[in-house]
Amino acid sequence: MPLLPHLTEARAPLTREVVVMNQHGERETISIPAERDLTVYVDKRELVTLMTLGAQPEWLVLGYLLNQRLIGAIDEIESITVDWEVNAASVKTRHGIDRIEERTSKRVVTTGCGQGSVFGNLMDEIDSIRLPESAVLRQSQLYAIVNAIRLKESTYKSAGSVHACALFHGEALQLFVEDVGRHNAVDTIAGWMSLQQAAPVGEKIFYTTGRLTSEMVIKSAQMGVAVVVSRSGITQMGLDVAERVGLCAIGRATHKHFLCYANPQRLVLDAVPPAAPVVARERATSPS
Amino acid sequence: MPLLPHLTEARAPLTREVVVMNQHGERETISIPAERDLTVYVDKRELVTLMTLGAQPEWLVLGYLLNQRLIGAIDEIESITVDWEVNAASVKTRHGIDRIEERTSKRVVTTGCGQGSVFGNLMDEIDSIRLPESAVLRQSQLYAIVNAIRLKESTYKSAGSVHACALFHGEALQLFVEDVGRHNAVDTIAGWMSLQQAAPVGEKIFYTTGRLTSEMVIKSAQMGVAVVVSRSGITQMGLDVAERVGLCAIGRATHKHFLCYANPQRLVLDAVPPAAPVVARERATSPS
Repeated sequence: MPLLPHLTEARAPLTREVVVMNQHGERETISIPAERDLTVYVDKRELVTLMTLGAQPEWLVLGYLLNQRLIGAIDEIESITVDWEVNAASVKTRHGIDRIEERTSKRVVTTGCGQGSVFGNLMDEIDSIRLPESAVLRQSQLYAIVNAIRLKESTYKSAGSVHACALFHGEALQLFVEDVGRHNAVDTIAGWMSLQQAAPVGEKIFYTTGRLTSEMVIKSAQMGVAVVVSRSGITQMGLDVAERVGLCAIGRATHKHFLCYANPQRLVLDAVPPAAPVVARERATSPS
Repeated sequence: MPLLPHLTEARAPLTREVVVMNQHGERETISIPAERDLTVYVDKRELVTLMTLGAQPEWLVLGYLLNQRLIGAIDEIESITVDWEVNAASVKTRHGIDRIEERTSKRVVTTGCGQGSVFGNLMDEIDSIRLPESAVLRQSQLYAIVNAIRLKESTYKSAGSVHACALFHGEALQLFVEDVGRHNAVDTIAGWMSLQQAAPVGEKIFYTTGRLTSEMVIKSAQMGVAVVVSRSGITQMGLDVAERVGLCAIGRATHKHFLCYANPQRLVLDAVPPAAPVVARERATSPS
């Protein structure tokens, strides 16, 4: 059993009340999501500043280091200490990070919301990823997942303007994370997963409210999760990567509707709804 | 009159048709947005890789350099040559970029969709920005803007999964830009604006489908545009920056509805709709 890092549990308010003016010229008090900068120091060296809602900053930092491939396993980390007084996350490693200067020098600005910067080559490691061949998604399970998300109390419902990610095991919601940037949300899930001792990921499903960009697909694959579900659509590079790694990518998942963009052989159609009238299949033309 | 840079007009298809499977197990052909990597070289030195739809790559690169404050004016640029065969944008400056190594070394990963990385300190220059005091938005003009966007033919309508930005002069749509990342879209608008010779920006309105994050507000202010309208909401740092620079920030703008988050004194209420029944003002609780 690997050594677990020591983590603080720094918490901060997730929403803030502000007074706005509406179309009637009236004052209204509404909530907006909090957003704070968190500068990450690794062994006292400044690495990056993340803008975050701040719900689970320690898991976020851990997942960030893992997803950026700056660490290979959590036992490389001795502690992560977050202090919102100074907006800093201090990471102490056990043996330093090899060639950190070199590995953080290449800059790619990617499409996703939020943490849109990865160090190094996006495609470098994906060909070495082996997703579990047996991993499937049943259509009934997909509908249960979409419904569980719909029922979730959230910062989004109270304040809007955040993205959510969630991890399901079968139909059971294991972790639900919101952040101002959806890459923060998926990194937080990756951080949390790394702390669960050797849980098999074969039946895990990753859900995101955001688009399936290449980074989202890669991060899911890096976690070993072979099925990703999104309320939104997919970008071309997201699709390319999903096809390349054998990941089942499902988008536009609302109510009974969805589209499977890649690897439909992982999808078990056990709950096909009655055929819709033709008119309902026409493409909506409103931009909202 | 400043020297204008020589720009190629590299174009590439904006959508791609793919075959997907729907909830009935049927195959469907749909369009998804194109997404391609564009590596920017400045005087043969690699600067950054942008993921983009690729509609107006030269304006994008120009706006990127301006918004990152790597150049101060367009006459510093001799040419921008985009070649989609090698996914490269080659920027030739007239006199080099001063201290480019130093100025591109600090990394901040921000909230916005897409180009979420800025070099240097986000707040460094905002206190020096002076927005035109006379700039206002009439409510009737806001409704015309929202309607103009609604009527626009777009990649979003045909393929989804892109963000749009637009620049209005009064009620007239001057430029409409879509990209997989909304920061690319606003940078493209900044690049285009810089090529218009000394046009006064006092009556310009910036529209975005995305959230008003700090970066979006800062970029608008850097362009001298004092009013920003969004279909989405605002984040806390977006609000903080809007208040600090005196920018009128309007969100949740759909049909007749909107919320003014900051500097409502710039808003002229010349088209107040009839009071809505109380039930319509209750907060929606559906996450969709």
